[in-house]
Amino acid sequence: MSDEKLIEKKISSKKVFSGKLLHVNIDEVLLPNGKTSAREYITHPGAAVIIPVLENGDIVMLRQFRYPVNEVLYELPAGKLDKGEDPLECAKRELFEETGYTCNEIKFLNSFYPCIGYSDEKILIYLAKGLTLHKGDHSDEDEFLEVMTMSFQKALDLLKNGKITDSKTIISLFWADKILSNRWT
Amino acid sequence: MSDEKLIEKKISSKKVFSGKLLHVNIDEVLLPNGKTSAREYITHPGAAVIIPVLENGDIVMLRQFRYPVNEVLYELPAGKLDKGEDPLECAKRELFEETGYTCNEIKFLNSFYPCIGYSDEKILIYLAKGLTLHKGDHSDEDEFLEVMTMSFQKALDLLKNGKITDSKTIISLFWADKILSNRWT
Repeated sequence: MSDEKLIEKKISSKKVFSGKLLHVNIDEVLLPNGKTSAREYITHPGAAVIIPVLENGDIVMLRQFRYPVNEVLYELPAGKLDKGEDPLECAKRELFEETGYTCNEIKFLNSFYPCIGYSDEKILIYLAKGLTLHKGDHSDEDEFLEVMTMSFQKALDLLKNGKITDSKTIISLFWADKILSNRWT
Repeated sequence: MSDEKLIEKKISSKKVFSGKLLHVNIDEVLLPNGKTSAREYITHPGAAVIIPVLENGDIVMLRQFRYPVNEVLYELPAGKLDKGEDPLECAKRELFEETGYTCNEIKFLNSFYPCIGYSDEKILIYLAKGLTLHKGDHSDEDEFLEVMTMSFQKALDLLKNGKITDSKTIISLFWADKILSNRWT
């Protein structure tokens, strides 16, 4: 089937809600069958997630409370792009701010959309090596994180047992598993 | 670190936007350090995604235009829970509505949160077997989908090459890969 039979075209766009974090648009669109419909979605600056791998193969993870889902979750370090920020710089900045580590090697792995039904957010995945831990204050005083290191196998076990439920962390761990174990065949 | 040092407590909650699809709340919360802050988030009914596996090992996939990201994407069949709907029933309903297949075997694999920063959406993953294709009209006339079958290896190749970018589809394929290849070790 050609893409023409699937694509919806924008007729008009209206910002209907604008908060500190969330911005909602409603667009009027032309459907492939000639009818019109409305599409509601969040506009988002995009984000970066980092898999920090230590010399011994362990990775750096966090535990963080996430209010929307009302749970403390295991996560990889990540964060939103600042306005105009390069995603690679965002990845390095968030790695340092959230964990205190800097890296001297960072590699883009892939990107994905967490929420195609109602958000334009795109998340870029980076693998970071050559890590150095810096003591002292690096974090936002109103961000509450527990930083930990664990073996990659332990992270996979948590994933297998349903203890890791955040999409960016799941996708990044599965992706790193393929790469680190050379199983992309 | 104890969870008490991470958890934020609700003080008050206010619905600030309500569209046909999206509903935005802003809650005032008490932070672990005694300060207060605001949390903006989408409330969502939850969803189910299905990995339909045919007798010969091929899977059923879709291509669908997603307006928020302005692309035609490869996806597994999926959809939102109707009000009060059991997720398993939702999975079977969406499988039929989107692909025309019914199944006589369906198994829950796991669940995840696509977007913990600003949505309470939870997606449940199901593996469906014993598929029967029903001819005739099963789809929503204003939903435009291309249904296809492909080998599981082909789906993994698309994933490896960055051609599958939807979080629910990536996570479900990685998960099925672990199970079908017996690699959860």
